[in-house]
Amino acid sequence: MTESASKPAVGYIGLGLMGKPMASNVLKAGFPLTVFNRTPAKTRDLAAAGASVAPSIAELAAGVDVVCTCVTGPGDVEAVYLGEGGVLGAARPGALLIDMSTIDPGTQRRVAQAARERGCEYLDAPVSGGVGGARAATLAIMCGGEASTFERARPVLDAMGRHVYHCGPAGAGATAKLINNLISASTAVAVCEGLVIGAKAGLDLEQLHDLLMNASAGSKSLASYKDSAMQGNFEPGFTVNNMEKDVTLANGLARDLGVRLLAGAITQQVLREAQLRGLGEKGTASQIIPMEQLAGVEVRL
Amino acid sequence: MTESASKPAVGYIGLGLMGKPMASNVLKAGFPLTVFNRTPAKTRDLAAAGASVAPSIAELAAGVDVVCTCVTGPGDVEAVYLGEGGVLGAARPGALLIDMSTIDPGTQRRVAQAARERGCEYLDAPVSGGVGGARAATLAIMCGGEASTFERARPVLDAMGRHVYHCGPAGAGATAKLINNLISASTAVAVCEGLVIGAKAGLDLEQLHDLLMNASAGSKSLASYKDSAMQGNFEPGFTVNNMEKDVTLANGLARDLGVRLLAGAITQQVLREAQLRGLGEKGTASQIIPMEQLAGVEVRL
Repeated sequence: MTESASKPAVGYIGLGLMGKPMASNVLKAGFPLTVFNRTPAKTRDLAAAGASVAPSIAELAAGVDVVCTCVTGPGDVEAVYLGEGGVLGAARPGALLIDMSTIDPGTQRRVAQAARERGCEYLDAPVSGGVGGARAATLAIMCGGEASTFERARPVLDAMGRHVYHCGPAGAGATAKLINNLISASTAVAVCEGLVIGAKAGLDLEQLHDLLMNASAGSKSLASYKDSAMQGNFEPGFTVNNMEKDVTLANGLARDLGVRLLAGAITQQVLREAQLRGLGEKGTASQIIPMEQLAGVEVRL
Repeated sequence: MTESASKPAVGYIGLGLMGKPMASNVLKAGFPLTVFNRTPAKTRDLAAAGASVAPSIAELAAGVDVVCTCVTGPGDVEAVYLGEGGVLGAARPGALLIDMSTIDPGTQRRVAQAARERGCEYLDAPVSGGVGGARAATLAIMCGGEASTFERARPVLDAMGRHVYHCGPAGAGATAKLINNLISASTAVAVCEGLVIGAKAGLDLEQLHDLLMNASAGSKSLASYKDSAMQGNFEPGFTVNNMEKDVTLANGLARDLGVRLLAGAITQQVLREAQLRGLGEKGTASQIIPMEQLAGVEVRL
């Protein structure tokens, strides 16, 4: 109790696949925690573990020193911060606001500016590492904002992640995260194409995976396929819909910056194909299913 | 000397960037070594280290128990084995023939069949790990052929690599290797696109690289860019021309097997673009240069 008393009160908004285990780690680290989720049922486990449940975003924001948010797209972030009954209308003066959603840097810069005008400190702080990393508090966290804001946020971020970076001013965390997801998604398409060839050629897939990991094809994407597609496990993890959103945002960022993407364009279409096949709410590894069907083979151990 | 006397005599044909350090490791492991190279100057260092130099492929093949070859394309392998004055016309009955070139499985199966008809044992055994892995004897080696042939070859292969796999019958090593290079080349294109966005967005590139390695974008391709493109170092390593050859072979293999490649097609064109810009004999990382020029930025630490 003494420890908790010395820590700032944290509010967490958005208890999805990622947000819920992240909020849980904030609570475990000894921060007094209040949570809010649009679907109230998702607050139940955290309430049982000792978190308070706020009836609205505004009531949460009014009662804490630090607000963390983890929602889906740019529109969600704008609604949660700028919308009626949103965080900025209710936050305490000087509150620290940390958005951990993966969205575009342009929107992050707009929300950061609005937060500044309300006398709040704001950080874009998207994460990488999936549900496993969220549970184990081993996430990479990429932050954009003032250096002093980053330092203030550090203890809360350290409760959720292992590799915590200050990437630069507002939007820099979002930029780094979109680059990460673009590379990771394009790498995964390359992995799928290679594995489908291996299956069609009749290679021993367990050996092939081991061999590729020990050769120049090795990657975290490849590693992850051993536990997902190769086991017939297409549960999210991270959904095709979310990855398609991120790759689309990355393609938009590249366009804004004057960078041509070829692999990025293909990756977007592969994810779109999976969506159009009804796989949007499955894990990203399910993008291999249309490739398998076309080749008439399954990449399974 | 006693140790050498108990080991089979090995001949090594093709002392290029990869072949020379691999042959050197065979010699260091105590195998009596004879070498041949089209450009005789490349035999000099090995001769100084104790290898014999054969004046022709046929004379090399007639004098050893094990022939290793490491040349470039399918036509080179056919010429070295099947051509006039080639290995198969001169090899001892029962000789063990190991081709370590990266070519298509179809050609490997044809050469293996011709070797069988001549009473020789044949293995396709391409490698992954680059010049660094060749020097350090840490290569991954992927073998196709009879299990008994693989076991016989094992001591020689262990002298050159750390991860030695028997992938299946004739051609299986070639198949696994083309899959590896396809995935690795496509991953590298993804890496380049992401790094160019990061440079154009003005991110700290050293931090970005570290962050991506610790996040889901991490891969051996990404790791390698820190020592190549990000240092302005475009020396091979592995050339654009060789990678374009391998990706083209992988696209052909996929076509033969009935597998559609999208990332593979893009990757082939990115490598073609680098060739058309005069970068064919540079290292594969130089494929980033046309992307940099188009974006008006350089990805350098």
